[in-house]
Amino acid sequence: MALAAAITALEALFGTRFTQTRPEREAHGHSEAWFPLTPPDAVVYPETTEEVAALMKICAAEGVPVTGWGAGTSLEGHALPLKGGITVDFTRMNRIVDLSAEDRLVRIQPGLTREELNTELRATGLFFPVDPGANATLGGMASTRASGTTTVRYGTMRDNVAALEVVLADGRVIRTGSGAAKSASGYDLTALFLGAEGTLGLITELTLRLHGQPEAISSAVCAFDTLEAAVETVQTTIQMGIPMARIEFVDEEVARIFNAINGTHLPEKPHLMIEFHGSDATVAEDSRRFGEVVADMGGADFQWATTTEDRNRLWKMRHEAYLACLASRPGSMGLITDVCVPISRLPEAVERGREMIAKAGLVGPILGHVGDGNFHAILLLRRDDAAELAKAKEVAHDLAHMALEMGGTITGEHGIGAGKRGLMAAEHDAAWQVMGQIKAALDPQGLLNPGKIVPGPEDAA
Amino acid sequence: MALAAAITALEALFGTRFTQTRPEREAHGHSEAWFPLTPPDAVVYPETTEEVAALMKICAAEGVPVTGWGAGTSLEGHALPLKGGITVDFTRMNRIVDLSAEDRLVRIQPGLTREELNTELRATGLFFPVDPGANATLGGMASTRASGTTTVRYGTMRDNVAALEVVLADGRVIRTGSGAAKSASGYDLTALFLGAEGTLGLITELTLRLHGQPEAISSAVCAFDTLEAAVETVQTTIQMGIPMARIEFVDEEVARIFNAINGTHLPEKPHLMIEFHGSDATVAEDSRRFGEVVADMGGADFQWATTTEDRNRLWKMRHEAYLACLASRPGSMGLITDVCVPISRLPEAVERGREMIAKAGLVGPILGHVGDGNFHAILLLRRDDAAELAKAKEVAHDLAHMALEMGGTITGEHGIGAGKRGLMAAEHDAAWQVMGQIKAALDPQGLLNPGKIVPGPEDAA
Repeated sequence: MALAAAITALEALFGTRFTQTRPEREAHGHSEAWFPLTPPDAVVYPETTEEVAALMKICAAEGVPVTGWGAGTSLEGHALPLKGGITVDFTRMNRIVDLSAEDRLVRIQPGLTREELNTELRATGLFFPVDPGANATLGGMASTRASGTTTVRYGTMRDNVAALEVVLADGRVIRTGSGAAKSASGYDLTALFLGAEGTLGLITELTLRLHGQPEAISSAVCAFDTLEAAVETVQTTIQMGIPMARIEFVDEEVARIFNAINGTHLPEKPHLMIEFHGSDATVAEDSRRFGEVVADMGGADFQWATTTEDRNRLWKMRHEAYLACLASRPGSMGLITDVCVPISRLPEAVERGREMIAKAGLVGPILGHVGDGNFHAILLLRRDDAAELAKAKEVAHDLAHMALEMGGTITGEHGIGAGKRGLMAAEHDAAWQVMGQIKAALDPQGLLNPGKIVPGPEDAA
Repeated sequence: MALAAAITALEALFGTRFTQTRPEREAHGHSEAWFPLTPPDAVVYPETTEEVAALMKICAAEGVPVTGWGAGTSLEGHALPLKGGITVDFTRMNRIVDLSAEDRLVRIQPGLTREELNTELRATGLFFPVDPGANATLGGMASTRASGTTTVRYGTMRDNVAALEVVLADGRVIRTGSGAAKSASGYDLTALFLGAEGTLGLITELTLRLHGQPEAISSAVCAFDTLEAAVETVQTTIQMGIPMARIEFVDEEVARIFNAINGTHLPEKPHLMIEFHGSDATVAEDSRRFGEVVADMGGADFQWATTTEDRNRLWKMRHEAYLACLASRPGSMGLITDVCVPISRLPEAVERGREMIAKAGLVGPILGHVGDGNFHAILLLRRDDAAELAKAKEVAHDLAHMALEMGGTITGEHGIGAGKRGLMAAEHDAAWQVMGQIKAALDPQGLLNPGKIVPGPEDAA
């Protein structure tokens, strides 16, 4: 590759928004997860779609890899430039381009974060519901098909992105989707770019679907003797059509850690945390009906709340679970697993997961978005303990294979990135080669986020 | 192409399930719409995925086109074999393969119709919600990304297909998706095949998401003085978060025709028909709140009902609108337009549509899935009147361009088929070429439903 030529051209184009300093390169070469440092050769900060297209044309002409960067909150090393080249940091492209409150659509640039967007929307009565926990950029969330606690009601990024603007590997700019609520007009390119992790194009604008802020919110929390009782409660609640906005599970180990760190006296049992959105009357009715299901399932310590303060108190254990887990083992880091199984298999999956963790001699509390069948183990590892990291990776690998056996997926929401490409053949078999054919058609030089998602030469069918 | 060789091989493979009789060929060469007769060279009735794969390998080797066929209810000539070849009639592949009530998933073959599926599901407490009106096959509905009256609540086929099995152009069989509620595992191939109209592969199995039959259903109907008041009522209802299961609009012309045909005395005004699904308490509350919105908007003749009989009476005008329209002009046929616009533009779009129809001297009552911004004009044409057909096509074309100007789409739910490929460049611009690149990657000989969706040599960029 003619990296030097590309660098000269990009420096001329971006001026001070082009950098090769070591701190900048290193800041774009590490992630929140356990992956080794992988810095790009240079970082640029575009401000317009035209700049991204110009950059892409330069890199296409010179054969230089290009990797997008949002907030760097990925847990699977998505934005690590495995083959060097240019990292495109989108944080200066963080404007709201257009808000159509009547159509509940907002056009934004990809570097805007979800919290920034919701702050801007506060006065409109609307909000963007997808909540992966981290304050990720919306371009990053789109690229990883993110989801989170509200998915059981509002869906994932797949359901909440109406349209995209994308710069392709050859610098062409395309628009996918429309402002209509639905369309049957040709291939669903919007869906194709969502979750493509920047391997098919760079997202430069998103049109997002917004939702009305609920008139009323109520939350409930309860403890169960067994995991099975908790999960059966979720299944019954879904079956009854009670429209949950969130439904989260934490296991007894999370409760135990939370009590130890915070001096609380919560029952050290599996808990469910649930939230309802609606009118005052409907959330009261939903909470009442949910309470009946809980009682039938032998749930205890049932509490519900409608004020913000009381709701936050009830959800505190969930919100602070990750930090409490880290604090419980000072100096540790977390390797967070992420599988999703058909909900009927969830109790067995969590149980087997727990056994795998115990057998490996690891500490790994479990929590999850139980309404989706998606759960995480927070494997707490000593930093720089290669043996423990190897064991944790093995547990993550075994959990993924277990999910596949059960008809599930190797990743519910964290994506493939640098961490899970080795599992793609197991999940997708011949369909993985089809992904490779699409990649080759749209990025024949393999410049966009190379080394991610699709088969490499070493994986030939 | 070596059609003769393919025919010899297919005859040997399929025996009596291979046919070249004229009635069979003609039955698979016409559609419900106005397109000219386009029979295939032969029709086969596979019973297994393996047979479809074997057929595809034969046709790939001989370069013979292959087009799928479901119930033939397409309104845009999707299944017309424009370049002849083999039509694959899926009606013998109509089994339920596996039902997982706990996971609310059902695996089915593509030739099963949505009514057959819902009949089979009746005892389970579950149902499949996508309702395009016609009793289409689920493979056909998947291939056209169908939607319908319940989309405002339950979504389109895009939202209700979890996984697919697909035979590719070279005979490989792949599986996309999983039984999990969500996944972030690589390219969304499921979404890519949905709406591809059989141009990328033949769907041989579907895993569908089911929903709980609502405990209670209530319906309401009301008349408005103006279209604007009706649409504003819909917008406000959405904004208030009242969870509508269906919301349909018919214009005053539909009401007038319905009265004339049925001897009823409904107000000859725009009407809204709405349906709520939930518990007894929540549907009563939803109906009450909706009634308040209607009163604020000056709606009249507000009626609501919860028994099946009363609900059917209220919805009669909607259910029978198409037949009443045809009956109002004996011997006519309908050309049905299908655009979808951002909901804020809907009143203007319907108004302008009405003007276009009047200016063309046509009769064309308007109705639609107003919660989605999707509406249809039923252009009533004399059979074999070429001048009237030409005018109707021009109105449909102008409506599509109007929808694009408004940020909408040329088709909300009927798809592209033989009728709308000429509008693809206008909607998708450079993205249409990307669809062509994907097609070329997966079907380099262009054998699957040729002449549909993607650019041909004549459309080169």
